[in-house]
Amino acid sequence: MDYWFSEMHTPNIKLGFRIKREIAHATSKFQDIHLFETYDYGKLLVIDGTVQTTTRDEFIYHEMIVHPPMFTHPNPKKILIIGGGDGGAAREVLKHEPREVHVVEIDEKVVEICKKYLPEISSSYNDPRVHLHIENGKEFIRREGNFDVIIVDSTDPVGPAADLFREDFYEDMKKALKKDGVISQQCGTPFYHPEEFSQVKKELEKVFEYVKIYIAYIPTYPSGMWAFAMASDMPIERRRKLNFATKYYNDEIYYSSMSLPNFVKKYCED
Amino acid sequence: MDYWFSEMHTPNIKLGFRIKREIAHATSKFQDIHLFETYDYGKLLVIDGTVQTTTRDEFIYHEMIVHPPMFTHPNPKKILIIGGGDGGAAREVLKHEPREVHVVEIDEKVVEICKKYLPEISSSYNDPRVHLHIENGKEFIRREGNFDVIIVDSTDPVGPAADLFREDFYEDMKKALKKDGVISQQCGTPFYHPEEFSQVKKELEKVFEYVKIYIAYIPTYPSGMWAFAMASDMPIERRRKLNFATKYYNDEIYYSSMSLPNFVKKYCED
Repeated sequence: MDYWFSEMHTPNIKLGFRIKREIAHATSKFQDIHLFETYDYGKLLVIDGTVQTTTRDEFIYHEMIVHPPMFTHPNPKKILIIGGGDGGAAREVLKHEPREVHVVEIDEKVVEICKKYLPEISSSYNDPRVHLHIENGKEFIRREGNFDVIIVDSTDPVGPAADLFREDFYEDMKKALKKDGVISQQCGTPFYHPEEFSQVKKELEKVFEYVKIYIAYIPTYPSGMWAFAMASDMPIERRRKLNFATKYYNDEIYYSSMSLPNFVKKYCED
Repeated sequence: MDYWFSEMHTPNIKLGFRIKREIAHATSKFQDIHLFETYDYGKLLVIDGTVQTTTRDEFIYHEMIVHPPMFTHPNPKKILIIGGGDGGAAREVLKHEPREVHVVEIDEKVVEICKKYLPEISSSYNDPRVHLHIENGKEFIRREGNFDVIIVDSTDPVGPAADLFREDFYEDMKKALKKDGVISQQCGTPFYHPEEFSQVKKELEKVFEYVKIYIAYIPTYPSGMWAFAMASDMPIERRRKLNFATKYYNDEIYYSSMSLPNFVKKYCED
């Protein structure tokens, strides 16, 4: 049978995955969640028609949203992940031997499906240092604090995550950070949506002294070029060396991922 | 009307472009050539079902196959492009003010279509320093010599370009280069075909003292991560600074494009 899932990257561009079967499907009060088994990319998690992660290339996204901010901090012990319900960011954070990791995911259904069907990614939930909170990250962050690193691993700035891309949220995030704290946030593809990352950069700069955009190759995301932001009141530099195995990140990539093509730089300056 | 061209990146992954119309179609003695007008990517050149170039993102490929080797050479004056029938590599080479540029394209039909319908890319043919030779690059290179830089801008190592990825061709190429000469070659996607670039690297290392793999983001190529090789008997370093406008390449990218993710590095070492 010829069974395909295609994500529309724009109304005129689509990436298709040949599917073996649907593993799970749930409609939560927030979103529509599918888990497929594909031929080439292992398991594929789709939310509202958008590829979230595949077991073949998730290592890139999860390493790159986690290791740059974690290696910027001299000694990260208390970590907050907003979103990240699949557990992949928490898995990477654990490699830094933190004291506690808080995952604040708004949608219980995402966690349920990932715990049941994506153990490769979600096994971090079995670690006693990982604390799961089913809650809106915006509310959690107003109540809790003293974090060394905050990682915003959310869906795109449309839908339930829209509030996580605004100045008032960044203000709350800064209050929840220790003085030398660092944050990272995924901010879309500079190729199709340069306005997204440049807006994130602008808003972060209102709140934090140092902001850096960095990019990574993610084959299953639109255009394959994905942007992240780091922000801190400390200069953004690599303060520790890699001391565990990785598949994408390394000490050179910390800096080379900040080396942006001119067409991307242009949007940073505008 | 819903009219799509899809490239099969693998039998199980495809990238689809919504098409406005077919601009041209020709079958040469070497290959099947289509030129489409798309909604999102401008004009799209397809050879044997494989995306060659689009007017929206061709700048990335052409800048990145040309500028790294050209800026490695202290004073590149006589340049050879093998393949590159669309004229895009020649256009970028001209920005370095060379004395002569030879484009050796095996398929006259490709040049014809590009000259007629892709002036944005092929206008370099109007420059008197650009000399077009309709010939097999393998034969041309045995006859001609004294090049400062040779750029192998061919299709993939299946089909008519297969010979351009072998040691004996690299030997001929070395003979056709001056002592301080530099070459570059496109060598596929490390994500889907790591064996291609690692094979290129191995073969080049039999012939040249210094070989470097570097990568660039190309949204319309499989996986979005594309590899190139540079080789020379001189150490590969940036010997000149960028002195004209670019959209992708810049002085930092010369080095950051050589900073490879661990899963790619692994294939360089094996």
